[in-house]
Amino acid sequence: MLDTPTDRRPSVSALTGPLVDDLVNKADILRLDISRSACGARIVDAGIAARGGIEAGRRIAEICLGGLGAVSIDASARFQRWNTMVTVTTADPVVACLGSQYAGWSLAEGDFFALGSGPARALWGKEALFGELGYRDRADQATLVLEVDRTPPDSLVAHVAAECGVAPENLTMVLTPTSSLAGTVQIVARVLEVALHKTHALHFPLERVVDGIGSSPLPPPAPDFVAAMGRTNDATLYGGDVQLFVTGPESEARELAKGLPSSSSRDHGRTFAEIFTAYNGDFYAMDPMLFSPARVTVTALETGRSFTFGAFHDDILERSFA
Amino acid sequence: MLDTPTDRRPSVSALTGPLVDDLVNKADILRLDISRSACGARIVDAGIAARGGIEAGRRIAEICLGGLGAVSIDASARFQRWNTMVTVTTADPVVACLGSQYAGWSLAEGDFFALGSGPARALWGKEALFGELGYRDRADQATLVLEVDRTPPDSLVAHVAAECGVAPENLTMVLTPTSSLAGTVQIVARVLEVALHKTHALHFPLERVVDGIGSSPLPPPAPDFVAAMGRTNDATLYGGDVQLFVTGPESEARELAKGLPSSSSRDHGRTFAEIFTAYNGDFYAMDPMLFSPARVTVTALETGRSFTFGAFHDDILERSFA
Amino acid sequence: MLDTPTDRRPSVSALTGPLVDDLVNKADILRLDISRSACGARIVDAGIAARGGIEAGRRIAEICLGGLGAVSIDASARFQRWNTMVTVTTADPVVACLGSQYAGWSLAEGDFFALGSGPARALWGKEALFGELGYRDRADQATLVLEVDRTPPDSLVAHVAAECGVAPENLTMVLTPTSSLAGTVQIVARVLEVALHKTHALHFPLERVVDGIGSSPLPPPAPDFVAAMGRTNDATLYGGDVQLFVTGPESEARELAKGLPSSSSRDHGRTFAEIFTAYNGDFYAMDPMLFSPARVTVTALETGRSFTFGAFHDDILERSFA
Repeated sequence: MLDTPTDRRPSVSALTGPLVDDLVNKADILRLDISRSACGARIVDAGIAARGGIEAGRRIAEICLGGLGAVSIDASARFQRWNTMVTVTTADPVVACLGSQYAGWSLAEGDFFALGSGPARALWGKEALFGELGYRDRADQATLVLEVDRTPPDSLVAHVAAECGVAPENLTMVLTPTSSLAGTVQIVARVLEVALHKTHALHFPLERVVDGIGSSPLPPPAPDFVAAMGRTNDATLYGGDVQLFVTGPESEARELAKGLPSSSSRDHGRTFAEIFTAYNGDFYAMDPMLFSPARVTVTALETGRSFTFGAFHDDILERSFA
Repeated sequence: MLDTPTDRRPSVSALTGPLVDDLVNKADILRLDISRSACGARIVDAGIAARGGIEAGRRIAEICLGGLGAVSIDASARFQRWNTMVTVTTADPVVACLGSQYAGWSLAEGDFFALGSGPARALWGKEALFGELGYRDRADQATLVLEVDRTPPDSLVAHVAAECGVAPENLTMVLTPTSSLAGTVQIVARVLEVALHKTHALHFPLERVVDGIGSSPLPPPAPDFVAAMGRTNDATLYGGDVQLFVTGPESEARELAKGLPSSSSRDHGRTFAEIFTAYNGDFYAMDPMLFSPARVTVTALETGRSFTFGAFHDDILERSFA
Repeated sequence: MLDTPTDRRPSVSALTGPLVDDLVNKADILRLDISRSACGARIVDAGIAARGGIEAGRRIAEICLGGLGAVSIDASARFQRWNTMVTVTTADPVVACLGSQYAGWSLAEGDFFALGSGPARALWGKEALFGELGYRDRADQATLVLEVDRTPPDSLVAHVAAECGVAPENLTMVLTPTSSLAGTVQIVARVLEVALHKTHALHFPLERVVDGIGSSPLPPPAPDFVAAMGRTNDATLYGGDVQLFVTGPESEARELAKGLPSSSSRDHGRTFAEIFTAYNGDFYAMDPMLFSPARVTVTALETGRSFTFGAFHDDILERSFA
């Protein structure tokens, strides 16, 4: 349980409402297609039949963060060639990234499978993670973001609305293919979330993470699904930088910093696609501890000392992105 | 023709309206002078008698982009000394940059000459470019930005209003001298537009440009017109970076990337002022293909491969800016 | 006196009102505690009992700038390890930084001492600096930011309201401890103000400073007050970069550029904490000319020439921050 009383926690769905309205109102500008599913839910196509784009992806990333975060896109000199940098800041990283942005809602029906992310997750609230966060949300409107390249079956859409306790008309599903520009941006904007998720996997108490900031280079989209998944992962694994600010003993902050970077994994050093191929395409054979930023700095607020582990790998990014 | 139906295209004048209103409402804060011309048009002086400044220029640059783009100013480590970087992102680069920002409206009367840029161009719509874009706008309000150091003759102002189909009271003209801070920012914020214009000159189909991002260092203003024009050009020619995302064959993306950077020009390697002097001040003797960013990456969305040509030239920037 | 007529000057308190309202409305999101003092003033705790955070600090920094500036937080490659960069831009640097942001209001009662910064200073207006700025403000609402780790005595709060000419209910005091995340951000966001203050100390006429931009790396907070004060100072002294644009003779711009950087001080080269210790903890024994950015570029608008003095010191930052 976080040390803030639950009743003071923001409603990520309420905060996200205006962002979703603005996305839909600017659908033509952002080159999105808006439609209604058979059950009445609003479907936002951000890269299947629609063009979408980087700005659409940036806005969808802020929707994923539950209205608690900002995603900016700027030029940076961290790498020789890949100069476009995606930076993530939040008002409250644990609620924004784990309570909303993390793709933790597993949705399957027939041969359709997707992981749902965004504020609707906290309305559903059935992931074990929510018990640990001590966070649940209530709202009239729900928004879920899916990293898919086709429209989900309508019965699944209706199921999501029911699970969130909202009428289907009040559910918005945003579809961002892995290979699309919007999808690429919203995945790479998970650099801070990935670090927090691994923080949780390493059993570091989430209520001790006070703040954080993350950045990753924007990879070019790839039409091939494995290549696209590879590049969006490699951006973080070999190009991502995260700083966390934590309470508690300095020694534990150091342990966390040592454990967090992708370099702590046995699979580190090859591109995602190379590793995936080496494991014969078995995603679940890959070391889950690989999925974290290239470099992590953890600052122990109790003593003020900072610990940095990991490093950037321009050469691996070049192999992956080019 | 772009592949999006024209009736879904945004109205750049409608989108820009709130930005112009905010600029005028904050005139005192932004150190702008607002007046009415004899025919009733609103004149915004952003650097003739008024001080203006970097923030005024940033806002005017977003007005030039027709409300479809964002211009940010940040510190960057790309160059040793010139650390202030101007970054341009858009929701739709072709409409934002070529349908609005490009300085394509030639205005002359007596000894007054200016190139008009901004959303009013799409109301006029008589440039050949608009036929190729398949884009025209209709609106009650018009805004045109002029890179001039004096107020245009009132008959010319009235002519612009008439050509845009708006009452003179509904026309706003924003004046930004090349030597002013606001002018410097709004010119340098053309880095992505310059790349798209050359893309067009190279006969690459504009409907195949899906997205893009650009950045250039901010040069110090120069009081001398040729030096000022030189620096604002050199910022892009030797310091600008653009990434484009295009559809179609990979080979054509590679050709585009090879053709785009300023290094593809016979005049590359000298500062704008040096070249201008070498041609005895004849601007039209300069190679038009020089005007493009220092470095360009083109990503072929069809295959996911990226091609980078050109390079940054810190030494030439130093010669130009110092 | 600045050359702009006083009646055209913006009201920094009026401009800041909406930013303060938004801060208070989002108190839960930003993890701030809001209370009323005995006399009725609103107290915003941004890091004493409340958690606060980087985003809270960023917003408080914009409040300090009197609604005339923007503070952005991004990834930068200026330094090896300390990649989070705070950048400050303004519409009018002298009014924003010296008329509002500078911590010039000395408040003491019993053993409580604090320096007040933000827009309320211009309502009080009794600092000598305001005479030189030729600027005074009038407003119904007042906001003062204090870098303190405890609540000020209520009689002092009531005194501030009276001096500003507002009812206590209309006074907001924002408390940001030096050791807090919010405090760290809002102090480091003073990089441009520090340069302008030293510009004034060097007797360069403030009305000749037309524009400016500044950036400093974000240091990790330190629980120890001296270490915290040291790091927030070192960020600017050894990592800060400022560019100013000034009118007047080129030779005077060069003199200013030469005098401004911290390297012009006899105390340059050691961390703040090392110097402080060397002077036996006597802050006033330290060279006041030390307090300025590591590197400064001054552009003489009259001739367009720029002068850069000073340098970044990654090694000293490492010693201070780690």
